[in-house]
Amino acid sequence: MKDSFKTLFWQDNKLVMLDQRILPYEEKYLTLSTAREVADAIKTMVVRGAPAIGVAAAFGVVLAAMEANGNTAKLMASCDILAAARPTAVNLFWAINHMKDVIEAHGADASMLRAEAQRILDEDIAACRKMGSYGAEYIPDNSTVLTHCNAGALATAGWGTALGVFRSAVAAGKNIRVLADETRPRLQGGKLTAWELQKDGIDVTVISDNAAASLMRMGQVDAVVVGSDRIAANGDVCNKIGTYSVALAAKAANVPFYVAAPVSTIDMNCPTGDDIPIEEREAEEVTHINGVQILPSGVPVRNPAFDVTPAALVTAIFTEIGVFKDNIAKALKEALVRDL
Amino acid sequence: MKDSFKTLFWQDNKLVMLDQRILPYEEKYLTLSTAREVADAIKTMVVRGAPAIGVAAAFGVVLAAMEANGNTAKLMASCDILAAARPTAVNLFWAINHMKDVIEAHGADASMLRAEAQRILDEDIAACRKMGSYGAEYIPDNSTVLTHCNAGALATAGWGTALGVFRSAVAAGKNIRVLADETRPRLQGGKLTAWELQKDGIDVTVISDNAAASLMRMGQVDAVVVGSDRIAANGDVCNKIGTYSVALAAKAANVPFYVAAPVSTIDMNCPTGDDIPIEEREAEEVTHINGVQILPSGVPVRNPAFDVTPAALVTAIFTEIGVFKDNIAKALKEALVRDL
Repeated sequence: MKDSFKTLFWQDNKLVMLDQRILPYEEKYLTLSTAREVADAIKTMVVRGAPAIGVAAAFGVVLAAMEANGNTAKLMASCDILAAARPTAVNLFWAINHMKDVIEAHGADASMLRAEAQRILDEDIAACRKMGSYGAEYIPDNSTVLTHCNAGALATAGWGTALGVFRSAVAAGKNIRVLADETRPRLQGGKLTAWELQKDGIDVTVISDNAAASLMRMGQVDAVVVGSDRIAANGDVCNKIGTYSVALAAKAANVPFYVAAPVSTIDMNCPTGDDIPIEEREAEEVTHINGVQILPSGVPVRNPAFDVTPAALVTAIFTEIGVFKDNIAKALKEALVRDL
Repeated sequence: MKDSFKTLFWQDNKLVMLDQRILPYEEKYLTLSTAREVADAIKTMVVRGAPAIGVAAAFGVVLAAMEANGNTAKLMASCDILAAARPTAVNLFWAINHMKDVIEAHGADASMLRAEAQRILDEDIAACRKMGSYGAEYIPDNSTVLTHCNAGALATAGWGTALGVFRSAVAAGKNIRVLADETRPRLQGGKLTAWELQKDGIDVTVISDNAAASLMRMGQVDAVVVGSDRIAANGDVCNKIGTYSVALAAKAANVPFYVAAPVSTIDMNCPTGDDIPIEEREAEEVTHINGVQILPSGVPVRNPAFDVTPAALVTAIFTEIGVFKDNIAKALKEALVRDL
């Protein structure tokens, strides 16, 4: 499959990223030269998707190191600013903590840190391809699969998590049709998932979020695959708001509900989904669409950005180290908790 | 409560209706003088909501009678055009069939038919107030209630079905807070429910459809009340797309799920929800919002307008003749099937 776009990459000592806020209307790359700009890009969702946020933050640390010029205290302060950009996706903290560990072990040399960030980027793509090939085995040939939000190449350094599974299924010669929930309020499904699958020639149809449950009930969906922003130690899955509804409908219709995520998304320090902080975003995401007001003036809004799907509704989790299923909590513990 | 607007009314031998397509931005009344204009108004959703469509169609028959000028065959043909305007809401067919019965029994006199249509309108408001008072008893004081789409004064001749229950609870002195699902694709919750509750000073907060399940899971919703476009003999409830998701989430969170609808919504000739024809509407409702394109060009869309909530997920149905609960299918049969 052609590399039809790049989510983010390092060039001429700067971080370049596709501005996802204006997709699918415009394909424009932004060049960021400070850690503050990277933090703002994460906050304002120029870049989004848990793995992509992690990679962006790692390069943010590289830019911070260039700015700090050997001042480790200053560098560490910049790390904390980056970590505070968004609260839910654990990959952000994972990447920052990893870069901090490297700084503590090997110092604040920017070019060494750049190599480390690049390694995180390359490993993210490799992880996506790996979980894609594991997951693709669970996708039947000639099937209709449903996804929520965008867990695609745009949400990672490339290939994607949930959409990576679909790409791997297609690469393996399977014939699939993707239903993309539009994913209000920000419409990442309708805008980003539709855009990137169209771009790669994968059959995609957009539905309003409200239609997903009914199509499953009518037997028109063979499998659901979504990404995740954080997976708790008990297997609860935090993901884009609305994922929990999809999981309930899948359970009711006996449709398998899969989650595709790198191991860096699994937070073994977080006992359950209810321990994950849920970001509430600004009302304007609901009151306006593309800058046009849709609700009556002055009406209050609640806008939680994520929800929690209990582990009991999850059929399996695809990761780069294998597939967790059956007793997911136990399997995660066995694989990820090292004996001390 | 003040009569802050009117959904539709008869004036100077014409049918006047609030143009719901441009709410909440503009409050404009359209004056219709032919049956064809009424059929188009139903089709294009100038007026929507199962009971309001029924009342509009009855007045459409009056206009048809004025046009037919005693030609009963011509009048009956106009009735069929009106009945074909939309396929799912049974109140439309109920009203047309009722008017046809009256024509067959008493002739095609327009002023007699006008009195009959007015009686349907008045009885619709009376039915809403009656089911509202029955339903209000199930709404706890100091509670948060959730609704989907608009089953309000705007969806009826006045007062509303689900929102009528809320109005009756408020009128009975109860303190309630309404969460309104925005209800994609046409946003009737965000636009119409928010508008009419704001207008009546009832506390309303809009959420994206995706947020409903999570708020229920977090214990932040005490009851759900929705309307219906058709209720099958077995108690399955057909309503705006997304209602089934809300019902699944309510069940999972042990939140009561109530349906408020006049008896004319119950179709005892329809054995189950799966026998109800589901209207698929044009793609543009999903691809565009307020005329602005939001999806990538050329991406296919599926747009079913309604879904079916199985009776097993319904706690009770509020009607003007009482509350159906426990074994709903049995209760409906006992109340509504006359021995021959």
